[in-house]
Amino acid sequence: MANFKPLVLDDDRLFPADPTVRAIARRLYAGIKNLPIVSPHGHTDPAWFASNANFDNATSLLLLPDHYVFRMLYSQGISLESLGIRTKDGTPVETDYRKIFHTFAKNYHLFRGTPSRIWLDSVFHDVFGLEHALNSDTADLYYDSINEQLVKPEFKPRALLDKFNIELIATTEGAVNSLKHHAALKGTGYEKRVITTFRPDDVIDADRADFLSNIKKLAEQTGQDTHSWQGYLQALRIRRQFFRDHGATATDHGHPTAKTANLSETEASSLFQLCLSGNASKEQTELFRGQMLTEMAGMSIEDGMTMQIHPGAFRNHNPSIFERFGADKGADIPSPTEFVSNLKPLLDKYGNNAALKIILFTLDETTYARELAPLAGHYPALKLGPAWWFHDSPEGMLRFRHQVTETAGFYNTVGFNDDTRAFLSIPARHDVARRIDCRFLAGLVAEHRLSEDEAHELAQQLTYQLVKQAYQLD
Amino acid sequence: MANFKPLVLDDDRLFPADPTVRAIARRLYAGIKNLPIVSPHGHTDPAWFASNANFDNATSLLLLPDHYVFRMLYSQGISLESLGIRTKDGTPVETDYRKIFHTFAKNYHLFRGTPSRIWLDSVFHDVFGLEHALNSDTADLYYDSINEQLVKPEFKPRALLDKFNIELIATTEGAVNSLKHHAALKGTGYEKRVITTFRPDDVIDADRADFLSNIKKLAEQTGQDTHSWQGYLQALRIRRQFFRDHGATATDHGHPTAKTANLSETEASSLFQLCLSGNASKEQTELFRGQMLTEMAGMSIEDGMTMQIHPGAFRNHNPSIFERFGADKGADIPSPTEFVSNLKPLLDKYGNNAALKIILFTLDETTYARELAPLAGHYPALKLGPAWWFHDSPEGMLRFRHQVTETAGFYNTVGFNDDTRAFLSIPARHDVARRIDCRFLAGLVAEHRLSEDEAHELAQQLTYQLVKQAYQLD
Amino acid sequence: MANFKPLVLDDDRLFPADPTVRAIARRLYAGIKNLPIVSPHGHTDPAWFASNANFDNATSLLLLPDHYVFRMLYSQGISLESLGIRTKDGTPVETDYRKIFHTFAKNYHLFRGTPSRIWLDSVFHDVFGLEHALNSDTADLYYDSINEQLVKPEFKPRALLDKFNIELIATTEGAVNSLKHHAALKGTGYEKRVITTFRPDDVIDADRADFLSNIKKLAEQTGQDTHSWQGYLQALRIRRQFFRDHGATATDHGHPTAKTANLSETEASSLFQLCLSGNASKEQTELFRGQMLTEMAGMSIEDGMTMQIHPGAFRNHNPSIFERFGADKGADIPSPTEFVSNLKPLLDKYGNNAALKIILFTLDETTYARELAPLAGHYPALKLGPAWWFHDSPEGMLRFRHQVTETAGFYNTVGFNDDTRAFLSIPARHDVARRIDCRFLAGLVAEHRLSEDEAHELAQQLTYQLVKQAYQLD
Repeated sequence: MANFKPLVLDDDRLFPADPTVRAIARRLYAGIKNLPIVSPHGHTDPAWFASNANFDNATSLLLLPDHYVFRMLYSQGISLESLGIRTKDGTPVETDYRKIFHTFAKNYHLFRGTPSRIWLDSVFHDVFGLEHALNSDTADLYYDSINEQLVKPEFKPRALLDKFNIELIATTEGAVNSLKHHAALKGTGYEKRVITTFRPDDVIDADRADFLSNIKKLAEQTGQDTHSWQGYLQALRIRRQFFRDHGATATDHGHPTAKTANLSETEASSLFQLCLSGNASKEQTELFRGQMLTEMAGMSIEDGMTMQIHPGAFRNHNPSIFERFGADKGADIPSPTEFVSNLKPLLDKYGNNAALKIILFTLDETTYARELAPLAGHYPALKLGPAWWFHDSPEGMLRFRHQVTETAGFYNTVGFNDDTRAFLSIPARHDVARRIDCRFLAGLVAEHRLSEDEAHELAQQLTYQLVKQAYQLD
Repeated sequence: MANFKPLVLDDDRLFPADPTVRAIARRLYAGIKNLPIVSPHGHTDPAWFASNANFDNATSLLLLPDHYVFRMLYSQGISLESLGIRTKDGTPVETDYRKIFHTFAKNYHLFRGTPSRIWLDSVFHDVFGLEHALNSDTADLYYDSINEQLVKPEFKPRALLDKFNIELIATTEGAVNSLKHHAALKGTGYEKRVITTFRPDDVIDADRADFLSNIKKLAEQTGQDTHSWQGYLQALRIRRQFFRDHGATATDHGHPTAKTANLSETEASSLFQLCLSGNASKEQTELFRGQMLTEMAGMSIEDGMTMQIHPGAFRNHNPSIFERFGADKGADIPSPTEFVSNLKPLLDKYGNNAALKIILFTLDETTYARELAPLAGHYPALKLGPAWWFHDSPEGMLRFRHQVTETAGFYNTVGFNDDTRAFLSIPARHDVARRIDCRFLAGLVAEHRLSEDEAHELAQQLTYQLVKQAYQLD
Repeated sequence: MANFKPLVLDDDRLFPADPTVRAIARRLYAGIKNLPIVSPHGHTDPAWFASNANFDNATSLLLLPDHYVFRMLYSQGISLESLGIRTKDGTPVETDYRKIFHTFAKNYHLFRGTPSRIWLDSVFHDVFGLEHALNSDTADLYYDSINEQLVKPEFKPRALLDKFNIELIATTEGAVNSLKHHAALKGTGYEKRVITTFRPDDVIDADRADFLSNIKKLAEQTGQDTHSWQGYLQALRIRRQFFRDHGATATDHGHPTAKTANLSETEASSLFQLCLSGNASKEQTELFRGQMLTEMAGMSIEDGMTMQIHPGAFRNHNPSIFERFGADKGADIPSPTEFVSNLKPLLDKYGNNAALKIILFTLDETTYARELAPLAGHYPALKLGPAWWFHDSPEGMLRFRHQVTETAGFYNTVGFNDDTRAFLSIPARHDVARRIDCRFLAGLVAEHRLSEDEAHELAQQLTYQLVKQAYQLD
């Protein structure tokens, strides 16, 4: 007997069971659920919006780019090859997209209790109008129905921006990226709606295999001598301006740790030369990254860009996976992260500058109440980004609010980031954040720690105004 | 006036107060409360089941072996001597078991809010049918009633296995243990029901006082030259097979940290010689333990045994207690534990092997969301053991599920371990786990994150199937 | 239109929304809400009680001393100068107290969700009878009304002690303090009600700029040769006795870490000489502080004083603020804190002494369940202080109880500390603690983990008896 159970997204999902709190949460949510989406940090492909071509098929749109999805399947012994993940050396992998979708459908129970389940069900129901739960028996129905819809004009990327009520979306590009897709958007009316973000890890992290080639490219792009310290810094200034010309209002820095440094010009220059020579030790490349965070903060004061710091991921923890499939294959693991000592050199220099906006993220939740909230509740330059990556989930968001609010307040936070390459899940991800914020606020109201008027105002601000202020979007 | 208050175990205990969630929890629990107990990791004495002799008395059965109980009493200034804990040098201690029981009863309020209170009340009420709360006034009634029942045939260890609906129980023995009690069970019909677990810390940890004598014993037992690296490894293989012949399906490793290593054969062999020489530094014995975890993982691939890693206890933190009373006297304290770097050598070598089953435990809850769930949600070889030791409690179990599920899902967990030497509390401990799992699942259902059908299925799996799969019990 | 909204302190504030749990919490709270306040650790100014002069004005009483308040305002770009915080060099700052109060009122929304909001609203409503919420429109009304009341006799410090039902309050003074205000209280009937606490950081921490001058002062005060190790120790004994003569029943130690040491007399003496010489390294001054904690524990055994350890604050993290405004300006940040290894030398020596009372505090909540509860649930000498500083808040207190109780029980905790210099907020702070404890207990009752009788008894003990026992106040 085929298993056809209804796929229901309850109106009250993610609200607490208590009827008093739930009723307040509903009222708060009603006031914000239709606000436009502002997505100031993410990883969608700007080519989608530049070309505005229809997406291919359910598997290559929904599964192949989503490392949350295939990491879980892989953890249960399903090979990446069988999921169609491309190998670096071109060794063949599964290419039957329907078969891959079946493998996913058959194992969809693995996602019970995970945020992926929430996002995916929302996409299935709200974007594609599917009415039965996904399993082996409904896999073909899903695969066919999604593919039939993907070819329609209303499923083109720009049409989806409208359908999703996305007021603005920022992509993320490396410092030497040509930004050709953003350039292509100029004059289309989308150039203020799809903007880039300056992510210079590729020219700052001397541990990368492509560091030297990126430094060379940087020289070509800017006409600077990027093998001199001052030329290198000037080249970065020029590239920052280039990104600003393509809409960027923010930079992003994905370092292994939160280390910062404040070296003298002589020391910094020597260290840079050492990094260029290829003879720098791990400690020295780490010190250089730390120095560059401080340099970037200085340039943010000059050009007004908001600075995002995303430290603490141990990238490519699994060498077999990295060698065979490359980066971003679900093998990045969070590490313990220290902020109080690591940020001090940067903060000593710039932390009291109220014009500077530095947004901190973490994968180490132990720092919420112990380090991040106390730091953001003191330094004018610091704000706290939302719960990130593995913690971008109902429980993760609740832990963030519960552990951060009492010391940092709401106004040292910056609203939600979806941080995703899964374009179709963006409305679902923002909806989860809105529901959880309303739930948290409703708890405060029910416990008489906040009036409902104030909670309505805060719900609006957390969803919209604080994001625009923090990322200087107006 | 004597204090005789009723001892009530409410049917809804440990369920949340909210009527919606409680009703769901009740329904889920009704479906699993009578499932057989599978206890794949614990410390009961196999002699009990081999000899099947009646237990002595309430004090020596319930109090003397339970370091949860006497550590709390000791923390409040009650000497271990007065509690009848035997000294290593034979210095006399209290031997009036009734008096000891009185001391315990008089201080029973100290256990308010602790899991010991839940387990003990369940034993008193459900195993011994006691109907009044324990205090000084009821101490004699308790002591006499328990002792009267203990001499009956239905309180013999094997009868209790039936009464408790224990389908299987694993004990834990060191690598050089004779396993005579398990041998004695052969042919009794209990040999598949009471099995051993291979715990080789005694022949791997060169910091132990008995390391060299154990290595010698290992040679005698296996006929191998255990002073050569290859002979030592071969001896371990032989002992593993011996344990498998006595039912073992798993190994267990209680190391100070989660450190692993992947040395060359030459390096490993030299390090082993250094450890045998007694001249190894702390770092070197630690490295050797790390290397041996990797060796054990390799042997698990060979022989199919599940591997359990229990890192992070600072054993015998209190030297006065250790000198006078020995190990396991409530003076083991958790330490911060790091997994991401420490496990990497082992994972680099074996982590992608889906046939290998490594179950990780921790005493450092900060690693649940930051390290363990991300690792288990990626590596095919890794699964997460339940909340352990100090965290084997209602709050501890809830924190485990809340912090692990969103990233690792349910299917990278392995059900419950009671991990106890307190035989009579086993049903109560499994009941607490079942109630808390149902409570957690009920919350997901009430918040529309899971259908109730799915929750029923998960409750079954968490209680029974996942345990049997993880420990390869069939 | 002016914004006049009512200021309501709901009778059920901080109780959970669930009607069952709330009803139990109400009943528990009714039994303890009127118990006298015992405040065994805090930072009020003894001069207030000695001189019994009226307070000046709303701004200098409520805002200027409260670093919780001005750190939040500062974090949002409001300068400390504009808030009237005095500079070290006398550079002028805002002195218009009404204007400062307006700045605060205009930004009062920043405190939404913070404990400061709860405390301040309670002071406004309960102490000053204000009936409208604070904002720009009500700022003058507030400022005038508060100032009018402050000049009245019933707002003198001693009258407020009565009004607040404060049975006892302890202040905190450095080792070389003259205690003149406590001396002035002798014979007034207040000398047993306002007592001091011995805080010797100033003569123990060789990293302090005033270390040598304090050592010299110590010699003058005691007639001892404080440049000899034995003379120094003897001088400390004499000062401890002097503090005891002014009511002290406890010492307090605010060290950067929880490090302790147990050096030989020769080693300790040499290390002391090195510290006096000014040539000690950071590691050596840290070791000296660690040694002195052990010495202080030994003296506590001699003289019976309770010992409080408050480790883990990174003091004066912001050098610009420190240089311009000095210490205690909201720029202290918590650090990761380790107890298990750090306390071991002290515990090896004195941890089994049940007559010794050491109360541990932490700013690192990760240690609650991992280190502190297991330590306090074993060592007779250890007790756990309440949630401290940034964690002295509804969420922080709940996390403390949820993470500590199962392993340490209630009886290894010591009730509440307000730890404040904000005198008028003391009733509100104790009220928050009482409400949160009742809420936590009510949850246990509702989940049938505790009888309501037991919860009533515990609520009393947590509020009153455990405090008096731990601080030896009778």
